[in-house]
Amino acid sequence: MTTPVKSCEAFAPATVANVSVGYDNLGFALNTIGDRVRVTRTDDKEVTISSIAYESYLDESNVGTLPTDPLQNTASIGLLKFIKEQRLSFGFDLEITKGIPIGSGLGGSAASSVAAIVAANGLLQNPLEKKDLLVYALEGEALATGAHHADNVGPCLFGGMTLTPAGSDSIVHIPFPKKIKVASVFPGFRLDTKKARSVLPTSIELHKHTVASGRLGAFIASCHSEDLELMKGSLVDDIIEPARAPLISGFEQVKQAAMKAGAIGCSISGAGPSVYAFGLNAEIEPIAAQMKAAFEESGHPQVLAWTSKVNLEGAKLI
Amino acid sequence: MTTPVKSCEAFAPATVANVSVGYDNLGFALNTIGDRVRVTRTDDKEVTISSIAYESYLDESNVGTLPTDPLQNTASIGLLKFIKEQRLSFGFDLEITKGIPIGSGLGGSAASSVAAIVAANGLLQNPLEKKDLLVYALEGEALATGAHHADNVGPCLFGGMTLTPAGSDSIVHIPFPKKIKVASVFPGFRLDTKKARSVLPTSIELHKHTVASGRLGAFIASCHSEDLELMKGSLVDDIIEPARAPLISGFEQVKQAAMKAGAIGCSISGAGPSVYAFGLNAEIEPIAAQMKAAFEESGHPQVLAWTSKVNLEGAKLI
Repeated sequence: MTTPVKSCEAFAPATVANVSVGYDNLGFALNTIGDRVRVTRTDDKEVTISSIAYESYLDESNVGTLPTDPLQNTASIGLLKFIKEQRLSFGFDLEITKGIPIGSGLGGSAASSVAAIVAANGLLQNPLEKKDLLVYALEGEALATGAHHADNVGPCLFGGMTLTPAGSDSIVHIPFPKKIKVASVFPGFRLDTKKARSVLPTSIELHKHTVASGRLGAFIASCHSEDLELMKGSLVDDIIEPARAPLISGFEQVKQAAMKAGAIGCSISGAGPSVYAFGLNAEIEPIAAQMKAAFEESGHPQVLAWTSKVNLEGAKLI
Repeated sequence: MTTPVKSCEAFAPATVANVSVGYDNLGFALNTIGDRVRVTRTDDKEVTISSIAYESYLDESNVGTLPTDPLQNTASIGLLKFIKEQRLSFGFDLEITKGIPIGSGLGGSAASSVAAIVAANGLLQNPLEKKDLLVYALEGEALATGAHHADNVGPCLFGGMTLTPAGSDSIVHIPFPKKIKVASVFPGFRLDTKKARSVLPTSIELHKHTVASGRLGAFIASCHSEDLELMKGSLVDDIIEPARAPLISGFEQVKQAAMKAGAIGCSISGAGPSVYAFGLNAEIEPIAAQMKAAFEESGHPQVLAWTSKVNLEGAKLI
């Protein structure tokens, strides 16, 4: 019998949720930034957080004072459930390195939660499969947003684009055309997810539901058929985006810049304030550049922009 | 130059719309019953209806007094637009044979409208493509339901399963697993589409929208991936079905009977009162039989039941 591993580190990618048409249902992983969590085995069945650091490309405006209380941090909360339900005889100490700006709408709470559980799982002699880790990762998301939505956690854990129908725990893997890349642009200020939820309508007209759900259906079909014209026509949101756009100064200009530069679709990433756009591989760099410039012209001096393929791998041990 | 054809007949199949999760968006064609329309060229640019007959399997309770006024009949109304927009120098007389019970929820108004335009198109020296006929067929549907929804007209014209996003005129063809057949059961009484629309909620909670649209997305994905477990889990409607079910005595018993017999999904067909179910090819006959029996036990003496593949051909000249 080998000596159990004492320490593991995992990386979990940033994610874009909602994707214009799939509020609380749809998300995909990015091949750019992410959070890292190193987990070290401890003797008692507790979870502690010994450090929270930030990647060097984040400046002071993008970092914060995340709680080190294990009951208040999205990285640790799921591990408490993990220890209990898996009847572990030990606990975990966490060293968190945030690479995703806090309150950016790029799935930071999901990534910390996923990285922690993937790393902790690496310390088990018989690690669980990824699909069995989902329930623990969702605990962190529930702490951050008040609900067990897997729209960020699903793609963060598994990679790719996933549909995680609200109210179910199934993960539906949606293929995504390889000829499309993603621009994601963070304007450099923080938007609280709970605030971004508070501005949403509590009810909508049946007709709006019909139109919006048809678009989600059409988008899913376009991912399977790689029909980009259909995809472009379906990536329209007149429920969530109009409610949240006023919270993001410059959003309309950024979207216009993206579409003018050839984007196939553009909307708010998750709860915002980041904005994502899809574009053909050859066109994604100018799209991202135009989006960044539009945010800067709208008075945001510290814009970060990335281009990437959809990450097909998801969280992993490093 | 050949003498122009004087007379053409077309068949258009019955269709099932909504399909549990795609209210006003989704529908498919049946390989069973349908309407036929014979169109004869006339000298003036008018449309007349010289006869309306019924297939012999329909009894008196399933037929009615459809209007012969060309402005009031779904078969003729689109032809008036067709004559005008295509600048035809002639008109049409129609002989309609209804094979779809009136007010059955099986797309009868769409079928008459589609059969008429397909037959009329057959009289042109340079017939239009099917996709260019859609706009005329939709005129009939608008007359019947008050809206230009293509959820019946789309699959009736093109065959297969189609997603016709409300508010757009695009037809998205959705593949459907060959291992699944359809049971459709008509309880033998008429339900007015406008009445069935009047019982629907005018608005719904945002959460219900999220759940319902996620299910539509998951259903579309399941059609592409042929994941029947996902399909079964997604075919749940808690918006339209609960509102309309009280209009169809026996619906709950019929649905229970279908699911108990192995159905993959079961709900109201279109505006009702017909009920459809999906089942594996080998299981569809007992599913249909159990559904028929449950309607009969609920006090409907004249139930008609059919099983079929999804019709991939759509309307055609005969």
